[in-house]
Amino acid sequence: MPKPLLSAEAIFDEALRVLAEEGAAGLTIRTLAARLRCSNKTLYQQVGSYEVLVRGVVARAFARLELGFAADAAWEVAAESWCTELRAALLANPDLCTLMTIADRDVVIDHVHRLMAVLERDGFHHSRAVEAGGILAHVTLSMTLSDVAAPGEWDDPRVFATTVRWLVHGMALSRAEDNLRHHDRAGSPRTGRPARRRRNAS
Amino acid sequence: MPKPLLSAEAIFDEALRVLAEEGAAGLTIRTLAARLRCSNKTLYQQVGSYEVLVRGVVARAFARLELGFAADAAWEVAAESWCTELRAALLANPDLCTLMTIADRDVVIDHVHRLMAVLERDGFHHSRAVEAGGILAHVTLSMTLSDVAAPGEWDDPRVFATTVRWLVHGMALSRAEDNLRHHDRAGSPRTGRPARRRRNAS
Repeated sequence: MPKPLLSAEAIFDEALRVLAEEGAAGLTIRTLAARLRCSNKTLYQQVGSYEVLVRGVVARAFARLELGFAADAAWEVAAESWCTELRAALLANPDLCTLMTIADRDVVIDHVHRLMAVLERDGFHHSRAVEAGGILAHVTLSMTLSDVAAPGEWDDPRVFATTVRWLVHGMALSRAEDNLRHHDRAGSPRTGRPARRRRNAS
Repeated sequence: MPKPLLSAEAIFDEALRVLAEEGAAGLTIRTLAARLRCSNKTLYQQVGSYEVLVRGVVARAFARLELGFAADAAWEVAAESWCTELRAALLANPDLCTLMTIADRDVVIDHVHRLMAVLERDGFHHSRAVEAGGILAHVTLSMTLSDVAAPGEWDDPRVFATTVRWLVHGMALSRAEDNLRHHDRAGSPRTGRPARRRRNAS
């Protein structure tokens, strides 16, 4: 049953199946064209280039990832579980990691927004939540892709777990400082007392 | 003046000069053989393979890097400056970053030892200093190589600076916990009082 017209959706769905069944090395224009029963030329015309195909596959694979992180828990727990889940999802999809370049970092943006929502719910200012979401995503992706590319003693899971725990401590301190600063500015008129911290500062 | 015998030192010295003058793309067996006035075959026989040549060049380039970090300052300042200096050295040598793979992480080990010495001087237990040195190196290398490979909004230097600052906060907490635990174990018999923290734990 030859297909007269190939939708982008059909192409990328098939490409994801190829990736799942044959791995990153199996994902070629030739293989994909054969499975879609079209010529290599037709497929090139539809997707533009192999590079575009790969970037689209990575973006779609990420959009489908379910990061079942603990969004209802306190932000510290939620943030740690978000990083752990993202790392686990990457480790479970080594072929995706092989195809993924650091230029693909933006594909996690929807997942980062879900984490940011938890942080803002628990008192992070918006700009701090943006910063923290970016840092947790950057560190998780960089370290995990590194570990997948070069397995060895550096990829001990405890190294990653401690890294995330330390970042969460730092986030807690920044959050507290932000809120103190905000309290200093906003608090005095409301309470009628001078802000304590400022009075004690030398 | 043809050279009858090529020492490994002479080969790698010349390779580092090629890297400095012509960049990563210029470092080929052919170029290097021409500059050393030997045949490609002779050079292959000497170094084994292009891969071995590149790994050797990276290791030597790293051994020569002077990380002028603030080793005499308090550990928090020293650790931040170590990460900043390592990142700056990498950013100043983009050709080295191109050649470097994550498998080359062990080439920083001498630099990590210098950082660990500062941490142990300032009260970190040895195992915690090992852990912290490894994490700071891993995060700095992973993030910086990522940023070099894919420049863009994620490589804002403030992102890296905040990441390191947060890690240092986490290290401070772990150091304090370690020392409290140690005090609990060692303190009671010396002071004759039960360790407070333990008594209050539920």
